[in-house]
Amino acid sequence: MIMAAMDPDMKLLGLWCSPFSKRVEIALCLKGLPYDYIEEDIQNKSPELLKCNPVHKKVPVLVRDGKPIAESLVILEYIDEMWNDKLAILPEQPYERAMARFWARFIDEKCLPSIWKAFWGPENEQVRAEKEARDNLNALEKELEGKKFFGGTSIGYLDIVANFIAYWLDAIQKAAGKKLLTKESFPLLSKWKDDFIACKVVKENLPPWERLVAYYQIRIEAAKASKYEENNKTN
Amino acid sequence: MIMAAMDPDMKLLGLWCSPFSKRVEIALCLKGLPYDYIEEDIQNKSPELLKCNPVHKKVPVLVRDGKPIAESLVILEYIDEMWNDKLAILPEQPYERAMARFWARFIDEKCLPSIWKAFWGPENEQVRAEKEARDNLNALEKELEGKKFFGGTSIGYLDIVANFIAYWLDAIQKAAGKKLLTKESFPLLSKWKDDFIACKVVKENLPPWERLVAYYQIRIEAAKASKYEENNKTN
Repeated sequence: MIMAAMDPDMKLLGLWCSPFSKRVEIALCLKGLPYDYIEEDIQNKSPELLKCNPVHKKVPVLVRDGKPIAESLVILEYIDEMWNDKLAILPEQPYERAMARFWARFIDEKCLPSIWKAFWGPENEQVRAEKEARDNLNALEKELEGKKFFGGTSIGYLDIVANFIAYWLDAIQKAAGKKLLTKESFPLLSKWKDDFIACKVVKENLPPWERLVAYYQIRIEAAKASKYEENNKTN
Repeated sequence: MIMAAMDPDMKLLGLWCSPFSKRVEIALCLKGLPYDYIEEDIQNKSPELLKCNPVHKKVPVLVRDGKPIAESLVILEYIDEMWNDKLAILPEQPYERAMARFWARFIDEKCLPSIWKAFWGPENEQVRAEKEARDNLNALEKELEGKKFFGGTSIGYLDIVANFIAYWLDAIQKAAGKKLLTKESFPLLSKWKDDFIACKVVKENLPPWERLVAYYQIRIEAAKASKYEENNKTN
């Protein structure tokens, strides 16, 4: 634990149920880096979070020697570059790195919003969002052809970025009683999901299953209630 | 021009008026890399563009040895990593690289959409969007304190990413007869803008001013006409 002595001041502002926050935890664990974890109350954000990420006011924020870094994809690259003598997170070759970054952006900008909309979007848009979400998952399914992980034979950047699809999506599906991703429709993603979650470093950095499902059940009920109110207002 | 012999097959699918496309051209020129430029007709996308970027179907796409890379920020990183023996585009140190990436994402995800909305958004949202756009520009103004360029003493990744603010925004302001960014309100950004555009490699890679203003005038008129139609439909 040489890094412990070299980095007495590394902390992560995170949230137990945030896949973005967990991305950073997985990366730090993959590199074997010690850090202090500070759980944020997202309903009542700490002055430290607001100071460290005034632009987005969101977790995760990694603070090293007093200098904050926000945005999970930015933090992952930072960790990989800062500790480049340890297990690599991004691929080595520029073209493979570019592909990993392209698909990471795809997950954050296309895939997750479409899944979100399919479960929480306005009712009249849910069917279209479901179709879109399936198309997006299908693009990722194709990326897995001939590979165990997105990163090849072991997990890497894109697997970490896709963590939501491996675990959170299942919790949402269970809470909502609706299925987007099944073994039948996405055999490669389903296999990947199991392999990803089976990795020690991932398993140790997932939120408790029952608590996560309960969390999403509450969110789904709250969304229904607010839609009901909205309808009563406008009708 | 050793690279010319080594890279007979590098081409860029671009669009004359796209700041995203021009980012890549500036980066290729900064590195002194030869490439073939192929102008896309965005109303009638080429089979090559659809094949190279089936996910987003957008320019720019850099194709090297038959392998396509899409998304301007991904391409910039690729160019910098692939030709890391030439003038660096990203900063050297991990923390500065993280900051450059953070602000690049901020420009694409917050700043540009708010500016867009301030000019093209629904009329009842334009005032709020203008306020948001000014706040976002203000965050960038602060980033320039004590620096000539975002990259320090010479242009780098973040300057290239901010090219829209240096040139396109002025053209839109002229076409719309409305000002967001002025010397008085953003003195540092205004000075940066002039310095950025004065760089030889930038100047050579900007769309012709009059043509760009005319292009936006047409877009503004079209947006007004479609809003007028929309209003007539709903009223």
